Amino acid sequence: MFAPNPVSSSVMENIIRTASTAPSGAHRQPWTFVLIGDTETKRAIRIAAEDEERQNYDGGRLPPDWREALEPLGTDADKSYLEVVPWIVVLFEQRYGIRPDGSRFKNFYVKESVGIAAGFFVTAVHQAGLATLTHTPSPMAFLTRLFYRPENERPFALFPVGYPADNCEVPDLRRKTLDQVMVQPE
Amino acid sequence: MFAPNPVSSSVMENIIRTASTAPSGAHRQPWTFVLIGDTETKRAIRIAAEDEERQNYDGGRLPPDWREALEPLGTDADKSYLEVVPWIVVLFEQRYGIRPDGSRFKNFYVKESVGIAAGFFVTAVHQAGLATLTHTPSPMAFLTRLFYRPENERPFALFPVGYPADNCEVPDLRRKTLDQVMVQPE
Repeated sequence: MFAPNPVSSSVMENIIRTASTAPSGAHRQPWTFVLIGDTETKRAIRIAAEDEERQNYDGGRLPPDWREALEPLGTDADKSYLEVVPWIVVLFEQRYGIRPDGSRFKNFYVKESVGIAAGFFVTAVHQAGLATLTHTPSPMAFLTRLFYRPENERPFALFPVGYPADNCEVPDLRRKTLDQVMVQPE
Repeated sequence: MFAPNPVSSSVMENIIRTASTAPSGAHRQPWTFVLIGDTETKRAIRIAAEDEERQNYDGGRLPPDWREALEPLGTDADKSYLEVVPWIVVLFEQRYGIRPDGSRFKNFYVKESVGIAAGFFVTAVHQAGLATLTHTPSPMAFLTRLFYRPENERPFALFPVGYPADNCEVPDLRRKTLDQVMVQPE
């Protein structure tokens, strides 16, 4: 859970500027950050995200192996933090580009590029003394509709950004050790 | 171009530890960082990467739209920095997991997760006062073979890490402005 304490929009803009310095395939910068701070839109996101997540968690839509993987994390369909947190950023990837005349051009290594920008984004949030989490309400198509994004864009992830609530609980995650994630050839 | 100045392996280990704190789908941490510091292996990577890139740039394998996109960046098949730089890190994504008994399990949002870890990696390199770049020698399958990585792993990107050479040149990249990458719904 996040605290309702406000965060200035200039901080959010600088975080997005920082994320947008990420390297990208052929320097296409194939990303769009949608920044949401108003109560009504945050509420609309919460309602739509919880609707999808209820179908996942309570309606049995989540495949068994996915449900099993999430169980230790204690996640559920309650996304009330989306209404409490001062900012939500929805990151979209541009699967291809569209020229002013409407013709398309290819983007390269889109997921990789937007992923690196997302990593820059999370790091910048932390460097600003704030907290975030990665939320991928599945399926995410409602985000494309909600923000009238063009047909070349797909949601990558949703990031609530703010201060953690005083009483917030986080999962007690154990990380892989260095020798589990790093290999040195002999 | 990078400088040949050495960087201690403990710095590299801390950078990889940092990258590995990235969030990931169902906390699978589906990444492997291969750390290469020895001359012979760096040379083998350079030879294989340049062979692929020569087919791309000089042999006409690169599709015309890709060639056009890269032209302003001035990239070519010369990857001599791979032999000069003190460290190369090859990041692999684990498309699925393999249990000790050989059975498979599903990973979730693999590209997104590994992308965020790559973003953390690049940021950590910068915070350590070092330089890197993202290199995706296409196709990258030779990296899987070179390091005997298991069948569930695919190369995500290759990162040379070190100090920039005194005389190094970088492309004069212009970035999109804030209003080109950020949208605020009305």
